[in-house]
Formats: sequence, C-alpha cells, structure tokens
Amino acid sequence: MLNFGLTEMRLVAPRDGWPNPDAGPAASGADAVLEGAKVFENVAEAVADCSLVFASTVRRRDLVIPVVGPHEMAGEIRSTSGRSAILFGPERSGLETEDVALANRVVTVPINPEFGSLNLAQAVILLAYEWSRGGELVQPTVKEMEPPAPMGDLEGLLGQLEDDLGQAGYFHPPERTAATKATIRTILTKPQWSTREIKAIRGIIRALVSPRGSRG
Amino acid sequence: MLNFGLTEMRLVAPRDGWPNPDAGPAASGADAVLEGAKVFENVAEAVADCSLVFASTVRRRDLVIPVVGPHEMAGEIRSTSGRSAILFGPERSGLETEDVALANRVVTVPINPEFGSLNLAQAVILLAYEWSRGGELVQPTVKEMEPPAPMGDLEGLLGQLEDDLGQAGYFHPPERTAATKATIRTILTKPQWSTREIKAIRGIIRALVSPRGSRG
Repeated sequence: MLNFGLTEMRLVAPRDGWPNPDAGPAASGADAVLEGAKVFENVAEAVADCSLVFASTVRRRDLVIPVVGPHEMAGEIRSTSGRSAILFGPERSGLETEDVALANRVVTVPINPEFGSLNLAQAVILLAYEWSRGGELVQPTVKEMEPPAPMGDLEGLLGQLEDDLGQAGYFHPPERTAATKATIRTILTKPQWSTREIKAIRGIIRALVSPRGSRG
Repeated sequence: MLNFGLTEMRLVAPRDGWPNPDAGPAASGADAVLEGAKVFENVAEAVADCSLVFASTVRRRDLVIPVVGPHEMAGEIRSTSGRSAILFGPERSGLETEDVALANRVVTVPINPEFGSLNLAQAVILLAYEWSRGGELVQPTVKEMEPPAPMGDLEGLLGQLEDDLGQAGYFHPPERTAATKATIRTILTKPQWSTREIKAIRGIIRALVSPRGSRG
C-alpha cells in the first residue's frame, strides 16, 4: 500500500484481533499504515462514508454488478468526487457474496485464462499500482452534477425499504428473503444516487406506505 | 509470470544450483515455467538473442541509460520486432552495475518517494502485468450488465408511480407537481435499469401500496 501512497487501511473483524504482533514485521517498515488502521465489525460499516466501492474478486456470475479492470477502476476513482474504497477478502476464501453485493463495481485483474493464481498480496499491489497511476490515460467522460451519496445513506434507504416491505408481507416465501434482499440491494446500489436523491426516494416510499390523510 | 502469460525464464549462475527443490512449492503450480527454465553462466549470454533488454532497478545515476516506466516498457516491447528481455537482480543486492550496463533501458516502477520498498516478487508481477496489458491476454473489460430497458418500460414504471403518488396525496402543493414529476423522472432514469430490474421495482411499489392481506 505505502509503496504507492495508499495509507488508509480498514480491517473488518480481523480473525486474530488487532493490533496483531505479526503484522509489524510483515509490513517491511510501513508501520504508519498499521498504526492508522481502523477496525470495523462488518463491511457495511467500513464503507459507510464511501460513495464508490470496488470489490476485488473474480467475475461473479451470481451478481449483476459491472465488472471493470484495474486501469478503469483507477480512472473512476480519480474522477469521482466522493471517497472510494477497494474491498479485499481473506487469502483463501475471498470475499463473501454479501460483501461483494455492497460494492458498486467488481474489479478483476485480467489474467492468463489457463493459469490464474493471484494471491491477496499480488492483487493488492497491482490495484495499488494502478491507483497511483491515476488511470492517467482514462478521460473522465461525464462530470457528475452531484456526488454519489456515502454508502451509509444507501443503508438507511435499504433499511427503511426492507422494514416497510416486511410489514407489507413482501418477503414471501421466507426462504427467499435473503436472495430478494440481495436483489433489491443490487438494484438500488446501481444508480449511485446522491444524498438528495436518496432523500427524495425515501420520501416517496413514506408517501406510498402512509398516504397523506391516513397518517396518525 | 504465468499469471500474465510469461513462460520463458532464464537463470544466471543460480546460487543454489538448478534444479532447486525449493522452487516447486514456491511456484504455486506454475511448474511449466520451472521445467522450461534455462541456465546461463552470465547475463551477456542470457540475453544474447534479445534485441531489447530492460534492467529492472532503481534509477542509476552512475549509468547513462534511458529510464522508462513499466507502461512505456510494455509499449516498447510490443512495438519491437526482435526478442525482448527484462533483467531482475537478486532479492537483496539487486543488479550489478555491469549487468545494468548490458541493458538498453532501465525500467523503474514509480513509487512513493517517502517510502519505497518493492521486493523482487512485487517488481516481477508489476512488470509482468504491464507486459500482459499490451498482449493478447488483455481482455476488453466487459460490463456484465443486462442491457438498459427500452424507454417504454421506464415510462410504465413512472406512470404507475405517479398514479400511486397522486392517490397518496404526494404532489402537494399542486403548482409544484410538474417540477416534482420531473425530479422523479430524472432520479429513475439515471440507473439505466434493465427490464427485469424495472419489473422488480414495480413489484416493490405494488407491495408498498397494497400490502399482502389488504388486497381485494
């Protein structure tokens, strides 16, 4: 990370706790990154202040999320006005489906189709390298009028909608609930709405659920 | 190397001899590269059949050799008609001056000037990655999304939502109705939802307006 100027590390529920005495020697002198690391209980909290989230993983056929390469990722990070995050999963298992579903994009390093064996450290250094280059050949195409809302705003919308849909008996049959919630999350993550737009959507949902005149 | 399609490794006077039983496990399955490795007594012999040689090292003030970045290197390798080679030195000491002097170019990865600590494996993977981006392994990044729905689908969603919001008394005061409808249109046009996603949103709206059990 520090080789390419990335300093802000966030850890989600680290298996061996934090601080971890094994981390120092492995960091080869990048102690400042370790000292500044923040720990979160789950991925949603870790990215709550970020408006553009990339999940570093192989192509996922089970999720409808745009897939970009490292270079494209760097260009997008450079041209967005909000904060960005790159998610990495544990060495062996990688990211869980529900963590990937929190992301706006999947970022995949194009590798040899006959032999693909990138480990976590290799994925990190390649994406950090591309980030540092800033996608210098990528021209931002559209100047966004409003920056995408931080992910915490989206969580608020999703929470409200899931509550209301639960009340309305929408999650039926019960065994499909998790999959249905994942679908809704994907559909509402895609727009990259601004904070103002999310507020408007939340007002619309309130109006549908409690029509004017019907409220207590 | 093999992650990015590089198969031809040449070793110069390996310290521990060759073959080396420790190399297999470290190669993570890329045994074909090990099996095809050729051993040379010195660097000059190793690059004798190459017409463009890059020495991977930090900038050398003692040598007058052009310095390029990884991306530039990949472009030069692509556009030359002869064979190319990239030289790497031992982990700790790096390349000797006389070996760098055999190269046509120095290739240096631009890193954080305040903290530079690239090891051999990291330098190799970054240069291999850049090399592959210019070659046949580079896949165009595919946005694996469903195509955006025809505008008629979006109009159907907007019509349903405006009707329901009208019933709910949402458009208030009346003189703001047109502006509010325009805002909703903008918010729902932005996602470029697919036909399937628009159907899901319409189902959600129906559930919010007419909860299960309340329907006639």
